Order: sequence, then C-alpha cells, then structure tokens
Amino acid sequence: MGLIGLGTVGAQVADRMLTWRPQLSRRAGVELCLQRVLVRDLKKPRAVEIASDLLTVEPADVLEDPAIDVVLEVAGGDEPMRSYLERAIRAGKHVITANKVVMAKHGPELLDLAAEKNVDVYFEAAVGGGIPLISTFRTDLQANTIKQVSAVINGTTNYVLGRMAAAGLSLGEAVAEAQAAGFAEADSTDDIGGFDAAYKLAILGSIAYEIKVRPSEIYREGIEGVEAVDFRYARELGYAIKLIAHTQRHPGQVEARVHPAMVPLDHPLARVEGAENAVFVEGDLVGQVLLVGQGAGGRPTASAVVGDLIDLARSIRRGVQSRPSFSFDDRITVVPMGEVVTRAYFRIRVDDKPGVLAAIGQVFAEEGVSISSFIQKDAWSQDQTAELVVTTHPSFDASLQRARSRMAALESVRAVSSFLRVF
Amino acid sequence: MGLIGLGTVGAQVADRMLTWRPQLSRRAGVELCLQRVLVRDLKKPRAVEIASDLLTVEPADVLEDPAIDVVLEVAGGDEPMRSYLERAIRAGKHVITANKVVMAKHGPELLDLAAEKNVDVYFEAAVGGGIPLISTFRTDLQANTIKQVSAVINGTTNYVLGRMAAAGLSLGEAVAEAQAAGFAEADSTDDIGGFDAAYKLAILGSIAYEIKVRPSEIYREGIEGVEAVDFRYARELGYAIKLIAHTQRHPGQVEARVHPAMVPLDHPLARVEGAENAVFVEGDLVGQVLLVGQGAGGRPTASAVVGDLIDLARSIRRGVQSRPSFSFDDRITVVPMGEVVTRAYFRIRVDDKPGVLAAIGQVFAEEGVSISSFIQKDAWSQDQTAELVVTTHPSFDASLQRARSRMAALESVRAVSSFLRVF
Repeated sequence: MGLIGLGTVGAQVADRMLTWRPQLSRRAGVELCLQRVLVRDLKKPRAVEIASDLLTVEPADVLEDPAIDVVLEVAGGDEPMRSYLERAIRAGKHVITANKVVMAKHGPELLDLAAEKNVDVYFEAAVGGGIPLISTFRTDLQANTIKQVSAVINGTTNYVLGRMAAAGLSLGEAVAEAQAAGFAEADSTDDIGGFDAAYKLAILGSIAYEIKVRPSEIYREGIEGVEAVDFRYARELGYAIKLIAHTQRHPGQVEARVHPAMVPLDHPLARVEGAENAVFVEGDLVGQVLLVGQGAGGRPTASAVVGDLIDLARSIRRGVQSRPSFSFDDRITVVPMGEVVTRAYFRIRVDDKPGVLAAIGQVFAEEGVSISSFIQKDAWSQDQTAELVVTTHPSFDASLQRARSRMAALESVRAVSSFLRVF
Repeated sequence: MGLIGLGTVGAQVADRMLTWRPQLSRRAGVELCLQRVLVRDLKKPRAVEIASDLLTVEPADVLEDPAIDVVLEVAGGDEPMRSYLERAIRAGKHVITANKVVMAKHGPELLDLAAEKNVDVYFEAAVGGGIPLISTFRTDLQANTIKQVSAVINGTTNYVLGRMAAAGLSLGEAVAEAQAAGFAEADSTDDIGGFDAAYKLAILGSIAYEIKVRPSEIYREGIEGVEAVDFRYARELGYAIKLIAHTQRHPGQVEARVHPAMVPLDHPLARVEGAENAVFVEGDLVGQVLLVGQGAGGRPTASAVVGDLIDLARSIRRGVQSRPSFSFDDRITVVPMGEVVTRAYFRIRVDDKPGVLAAIGQVFAEEGVSISSFIQKDAWSQDQTAELVVTTHPSFDASLQRARSRMAALESVRAVSSFLRVF
C-alpha cells in the first residue's frame, strides 16, 4: 500500500495499519504492508509514530512504485488529488479514497478509467464517515428500485442548527462555538453553504440511482438565512430545522437538492443530534432503512478506508479477473428546482394595518399555492409591524419563489424574513 | 437458481426474480434464471403467478439438479431445512438462506462445510430483514474491534411492548392486537419468549466477534413478566421498556443476553417504534453506528435474499476461485449471566408497616448492591400493602438475583412483582 496524506485521517489509517498489521492481514487473507506515505512536509510533527524512511514528498514514489498495488488517498481537495488518482489508476493500481470532492466531481470518469484498466476504486469513506453506505447500495439494496435517499450528512451544520435550537444562539454565535468545539473549520463556508452536503449527495445519488449526478446540477442553499426565531416557530408547528440533502426518483428524472428544511418531529431525520450523520433510504422492496453514525473525523473515516482496504485485498487474493463496473444511465436527468413539488414555510414581517392579509392571501391564490397553516403573533407596537408565519401545501418550487418575490414587493410587506422548505 | 419455499417470503423472491429478470441479470452481470421451486403442496394457491412446471415436491429436483448453481432457502424452521442445505452444499451448490434457526444452530458447521466444498453461504436475510447487517460486519467494520452490539431485533415484542406502553394494555391484550394486525403469529411463543431474538443474536454475535455463539449459551428471558404498571414507572424514571438483545466484548469473553430491559429514553434503541428493528453497534474506530429498518416481512426479507443473490452471482461471474472462509476464535467464551454486571429495577409489593424498608435495605446492602433510585407510592389501604420501586447501580447479576430471592422470602414482602435489568 501507498498512502497519500498523513493528517487527521491519514494518521489514523497509518496507525491502524502499523499497529494492527497481523489482525488486518489475517482478515484480508494476504500480508498488508504500508510501503510509502506521500506528505507535503517531511518535518511536520505527526500524530502517529512512523519511520521517517516511509515518508516521501515525491508523488511518483507512491503513484508509480511497482511494489505498490493499492493507493489510499486521504489528503482531500480537488487538485492535485484528482491527477494523482488518475496517475495511480493508469499505473494499474487500485485506489481507495476518502475524497468527496474528487469523487463528486470526477467519480464517473475515474470509475470508467478504472474499468478500462481493470482495477478497483473504493470510496466508502467519501460519504458519511464510517456509516456503511456505498456497500449498502452496491450490494444489499441491489434488488430494489431506490425511491428516495434523504440525509443529514453535514455534521457541522447539524451541530450549529442544534445549538441555535437548544440555546437560542445566532448563526454566528453557534458557528463560533462549533469552531471552538472542533466541529467546524476556521473557514466554514463549505459546510454552512451546503457545498459539502452537495458533494456527498452527488456521490450518494450516483450510487443509489446509477446515474451521473454532478454537484453543479444539485440545487444548493446553505443555512445562512436561518434565524433564531425560526426555531421557535418550528417547535410550535412540530418541526425541527435541519440541513437536508434529498433525492427522489421520478419517472425518467430525479430530484437532487440541498437546503435547510422544516422536518416533522416524528421523522427519523428530525432526531439526528449534534455532529451525527444519518441517511434515510426508501426502496420498493426493503421499505425504509435508516443508517446513523459519525459522519466525519479521523477515526470513523479511517474505519471506512481500512474496511475498504480489507475488502479490496480479499478480492485481490481471490484472483478476481473481471470486475463489476459501474454503469450509469445517462437518460435520467435532474429535475430543475422550479419543477420540484414541495411544501414551504414563510415568515413575513408586515405593516400592522388592515388589508395586509388580503394582499398576501391574493398572492398565494394567484400563484396556485394553497395554505396549510397560518400564525400571526402579537404585533410589535414600537414599529407597527406584525409577523406572519405561513406554511403551504405542496406546490411547484417556482410558484413558491414567485409568491415570495411578489410578497416582498408588496407595499405593506416589510420583508419576507425567512423561506424554508417543509420536508 | 432453485428456490425452497413459496410462502410470504418465497412469493416475493419469486416475483422479483420473474418480473425483474432483465434488471437483476444486468446488475449481476450474468443471466439469472429461476429453474425450480420446491414446495410442500403443488395445489396450494400462491401469491405469485408462477408456471406450474417450475414447482416440484421432490427435494432432489432442487438440491441435486446439475443445472442449478444456487439454492435459495426461504422456508424456515430447523429440519428438514438444515439437511437440505447440507445436501445442496455437498452437491457443490452455493446457498442463500433466510433461515435464522438453521444459521443460529448450525451456521458454523454449514460454513465450514461450504469452505471445504469451495462454495458460499449467504444469510443476510436471516437477521434483521432488509437491514444491511452481515455485509456491514463482514466488510465495512472489518477494521474495528467490535465492542458492543445491542439490538431491538424482534418486531412482535416491540409492537406488543409499544402498545402496552401507549395504551395501557395487558400483555395478553397487546398480543391479541398484534395477532389481529398481522404482527404476531398465532403461536407467539418464539417471539414473546425471546427465542427468536436469541437466534438472531447468536448469528449477529458470531459475525461481530468471529466466535461461535450458540443459542443455548445466550441468557434468554421473554417479556411474559412485564406488567402495565411497569411502563408507568419506566416513564417516571425516564426509561422505555424494550426486549433487548445485547452482546458486549470483555477480555477473552463476550456477554450475550436477551431480556426485557429499561432503556434510557435518550438511547437510540428506546426510540425504535412498532415492528421496526434496530441494531446499535460500537466499534473502536467507527464509534457508534445505528441501523434501522423493517426486520421481517416478505418484501424486506426478499430484498435481502435477492441482494445476496446479486452479490453471489457477481462473484461467480468474476471467476472467484478461493473464497474467504469464516474463522471463529474458539478461545473466546460467553460470560455466565451471574457474572454479568448490570443495573436493575425491582418492583416490590410490601406490607405497609414499620421496618419493611430497613429489611429490604439490609438485603441489598448484604448483597453489595448499591441503590440508585427509590420510589414509594401511596399505600393501598384495602390490603395494607405498598409498592416500592428500586433501581440499583451496576452489580453482578448473581447478586441481584440473590437479593431478589431473599426479598421475596422476607415476611413483610408480599411479592417481588417485577425485576428488569436497566440497560
């Protein structure tokens, strides 16, 4: 084996491979040997005790060494990792990666190339840390038509939303707390903006439906617009607020979207706590399946990487000649967000005067949006405004968006302060 | 393929294989053909449309036909199924079974025989219906030392306990309701007595710890002793009552036990609803993983059986020569229940007179059992008794049992009405 990256995940992978070598080799049925580790800086202190002659800064030492059969990549990020993986595959090496960005953006191409070169690409660790997902779709659920995959798949946003709900923190306060607790990066844009969840959903969707779901095709909205007051209304209405990554099959199409949503409290995804991840799957035979675990972190991710390694090593030992290639159905496309049918929650700040309700009701009626619940709390006397909260029945997202813009333009409406889909 | 059994599960398996043949064959990469179905009665009406010349009552037509490579057994029960599977393996056929009794009692022997004959035995459907369990342990979690596997793995008892909790039904009423709703068999002994859960735990434990766990070695207690009043105390103390199947690793030993237990409301297993199953796993790298789904029923079980079939067919197509055999560590033994350390809940009917509390306290003290909580409700004036509820700190189960017997023998104690472990 050659390993790329010796950070949080890499240190755990190397540690398990070095200290557990006999157990892993026994389970794999072949001798597993960590040959070389590619790092950026030879002198950086490491969280794992590792012989210095194992380390190298020269990519070819891992990617082209004929003694290396398998390349494990746990460094992350797009380039140069995509190129490294391509080089490894072209050199006839099997690849195991925890890289969600590369797999989401370039997974189908790498899988095609691997099929051509008759090597394997394993990527269980790229989604949901140690939660068994890829193998679940690739083997256990193969007898099913997958109807829906919905997930709370970003631990940072779930922690942040949880703290906003429980302690009434603002988004900024909760993010700062998550950073202090080690649940958020210094630059949290990828998480808060929903980019990380979209990468993961692209991979999950590709596997679940056997189609190429590009991250750019996924509708994506982060949690930046969620305010503390929305949690109070959510509770009152019987919802939790979660960043939901959702895909659903329609004839010839799939929905694929990431956005904050009001999730009914009796839905299993409403109960996902803290930095946990959960994936809810519905298949036509199996019914509903829920998989929960730690979606990130060095140890759970290392569990997935080394699990893949053992599976791959067994396959090498068994002399597998002809690998199952991934086949993608190009005829199935992603539904544009405007055509998605969803329920929604609006929080609207209005002038506290007659006629406002009629004006708002008319906008909804003209857009064909039917109202499910309506709350108006006491007005704020200091600025003569009131807050309306409306939830709708299922409608086209485009209609909901038009209703949102048209209401914002009404003279008597100060602002549509919040707009969330209801899951 | 030859199929044994055409009942609830068999009809679903046959239906998917007949109506989905092109999709399944594409996913497997080889042509899948249902060759023969062994039934007991050719004339019985079937839930699936199937050509009558596919049916046979002659076991050899399935077990020894050279045109059949794979035998799928979904008939259930110990004999003659164990013998049938053995015959199929001896005839060089791969086996896929949903039979928990055979796998729990004879799994290790069948797996050894299969290794000798270089064929595979798949049994995902034997535990937890469509929940991906065997593959999770056999591949995804292979990099871990499994520390704990705890499950709500019998849907009937979970439905019954749920109805007792929610509607205040007696056990008999709740069982009758479960039977009417199709969640319990006419003879529910296997479920209510914990036998079904013990079979499943034997299989799960064997796979999780790579040891031979015999059903006879598992401490087993059914839910017969749970009364409606216990649910009221459970709620008051912050617990749900569940039939728990629990294994835990200790140095050189594992705990393996099935019994009703008070489960803290914040534990994921406390929230498993109705006929759902859930398996909670703790690994040293992956941390905690929870897997939830429908644990029984024709369709989820068929999902697991046909999923196994596709996996197996791929392996046949890939020309696998040397199969990974299961290896069991015979040095690890099951801890006798008396040596298990657990917390407990006692509900005690006592004479409402001075000195009772002191007597009970003394019994606990002499057995070295430390009390965690204590409740005494108003006395029943009509028979001058009172009800005490005690929960303890962790103690040896043998000490708790001695305390239970000694208290029952006290003159001032009418009965130890309930004894439940606290999870």
